[in-house]
Amino acid sequence: MIENAYYTPEVHGAYELIDVGDLELEEGGVIPGLRLAVATRGELNAAKDNAILVTTWYSGTHEIWTREYIGPDHALDPERYFIVIVNQIGNGLSTSPHNAPGDIAMSRFPRVRVGDDVVAQERLLREHFGIERLQLVVGGSMGAQQTWEWAVRFPDKVLRAAPIAGTAQNTPHDFLFTETLVETIECDPGFAGGEYASNTEVEAGLKRHAKLWSAMGFSTEFFKTEHWRGIGFEDRETLQTAFMEPYFTAMDPNDLLAMAWKWQRGDVARNAGGDLAAALGRVTARLYAMPISEDMFFPPRDCAADAALVPGAEVRVIDSVSGHLGLFNLEATYMPQIDENLRDLLAQEV
Amino acid sequence: MIENAYYTPEVHGAYELIDVGDLELEEGGVIPGLRLAVATRGELNAAKDNAILVTTWYSGTHEIWTREYIGPDHALDPERYFIVIVNQIGNGLSTSPHNAPGDIAMSRFPRVRVGDDVVAQERLLREHFGIERLQLVVGGSMGAQQTWEWAVRFPDKVLRAAPIAGTAQNTPHDFLFTETLVETIECDPGFAGGEYASNTEVEAGLKRHAKLWSAMGFSTEFFKTEHWRGIGFEDRETLQTAFMEPYFTAMDPNDLLAMAWKWQRGDVARNAGGDLAAALGRVTARLYAMPISEDMFFPPRDCAADAALVPGAEVRVIDSVSGHLGLFNLEATYMPQIDENLRDLLAQEV
Repeated sequence: MIENAYYTPEVHGAYELIDVGDLELEEGGVIPGLRLAVATRGELNAAKDNAILVTTWYSGTHEIWTREYIGPDHALDPERYFIVIVNQIGNGLSTSPHNAPGDIAMSRFPRVRVGDDVVAQERLLREHFGIERLQLVVGGSMGAQQTWEWAVRFPDKVLRAAPIAGTAQNTPHDFLFTETLVETIECDPGFAGGEYASNTEVEAGLKRHAKLWSAMGFSTEFFKTEHWRGIGFEDRETLQTAFMEPYFTAMDPNDLLAMAWKWQRGDVARNAGGDLAAALGRVTARLYAMPISEDMFFPPRDCAADAALVPGAEVRVIDSVSGHLGLFNLEATYMPQIDENLRDLLAQEV
Repeated sequence: MIENAYYTPEVHGAYELIDVGDLELEEGGVIPGLRLAVATRGELNAAKDNAILVTTWYSGTHEIWTREYIGPDHALDPERYFIVIVNQIGNGLSTSPHNAPGDIAMSRFPRVRVGDDVVAQERLLREHFGIERLQLVVGGSMGAQQTWEWAVRFPDKVLRAAPIAGTAQNTPHDFLFTETLVETIECDPGFAGGEYASNTEVEAGLKRHAKLWSAMGFSTEFFKTEHWRGIGFEDRETLQTAFMEPYFTAMDPNDLLAMAWKWQRGDVARNAGGDLAAALGRVTARLYAMPISEDMFFPPRDCAADAALVPGAEVRVIDSVSGHLGLFNLEATYMPQIDENLRDLLAQEV
């Protein structure tokens, strides 16, 4: 257990830690008394049929969703829907390497898969909230991986699904890119095989991590058009030192690596003996795959290839020069596209 | 001076080390008695007007050109042309950090720019071979940077130019990507600020370097289509351990970093007070910009943007799933496209 002031309500806004019991993991092992950090907006109606599940991305929490994506002016409108944002396992707010009990703390944290998250989320919704069906599951990047997994694993429970900037089966290139991200941290002598005393000992590695994220997370066109100006930075260096570096150096290295391991292995085909087409063929949700146009590692064609295997799915490309990190809502034109597509999707009869 | 068996004729084929005298550098300082490693094919005719200059890329030497690009079946035909391949400064065969005299050896090697290479190459061609005009300058990647520089700096000497997979002005994204490449090496404790005793001490860093090259140097589609099979590897891991890792771990870290520094700052606009349009407007060569379709860091649109500033230039996109590293001729469809475009270009009246 490491104290880290970043993983607190003061930084991320209020959330509830909900114990969903022991979680047996696909890779073996168990997380005893798994605690999921959950934030909600809106009210669950009496029929319990107005719920939307939001899943979180690598390094992200519920905070970006409550700040940028959810509100009365958005498709994710708390006046109409009960919106449940569940922080993924390992993200630092839910049970994670840095806050886990000693025998599974730090380098001893077990391997967690996307499917484990989804099983835990389903249990949470059912047992804690009494929710049996979801109007929508939506998430970006690793949140998209969870969204795809939900649609495949629990088709009867998911009426609509909107995986943004993420694939149902992680691609080999994406696996490789994530490997290079992992190495930026693991090669830091301060990482000490995951047994550092504080994340500050791994600062150099986390800064390299932040830089590599910039190289693949934005886009060639983001830099060429100097779009950093559009988000308030005077130059590329300031984007790095005032945004990317503080963002990642605040985080826990083992938490990031737990998520990275999971991200690399996201694959709904595991639900059908490795047959991706069979797995995606099970989806009954109305599904809009929403890749980001300039995404360098979840490019639209990869997302579209997965969507093509889902009956009736549509591909709605989000135009964004910011690339994958456009997910942070870095352009005035971004959120209107998200909202328009989610409104369309939520208006679909199912 | 470090002994490194990689940088020998046994590995790269014969070359001549030609002393072009002292080279004063744009960044200040001087390389005394600069030695350029030069390989030639064909015969210089009596009029000395059948010469083609080939420039080399990051980590590359003349060897890949003599093996893959030059021959009687290629546009670069030694039966018609006198082809001079000049290894760039810092590439390990020409004067480089690992083989330089003590006062400029290793971490003391001065900063070298693309313009310095081109000045040295012009001097070599004129003083050593008596060549005043070139039928063609052609190179890939950093070789493309030198090609652009030649066309801008010596317009009267360059009749035709074919920059393959490279820009005239390096983009900010490309600068950043190269920074992440540099960090894979510099963060290795064995690098010791550039004062290692052998490149083997930096093996871990060089392996990370090789991995990051795979992530950006190939393409998402290369991995998705498992094109490694097409080039003789059974899986992605073997591609890494049997090709990329041996390739880079044989090399000298300081040599790579000298090239990386140069690559980051390639910019023909320096010839016109920072005005890219003015610089490229000076080009009188017939120029075909030949970006590679799936190149992730010299994407076609960036190459096309530079070409648009050159009077009469054409953009000829080379279709290749291999991305930037398609330069290694990894597909049966690659070289025919290169040859067709170079034949077209060489057939152009100038």
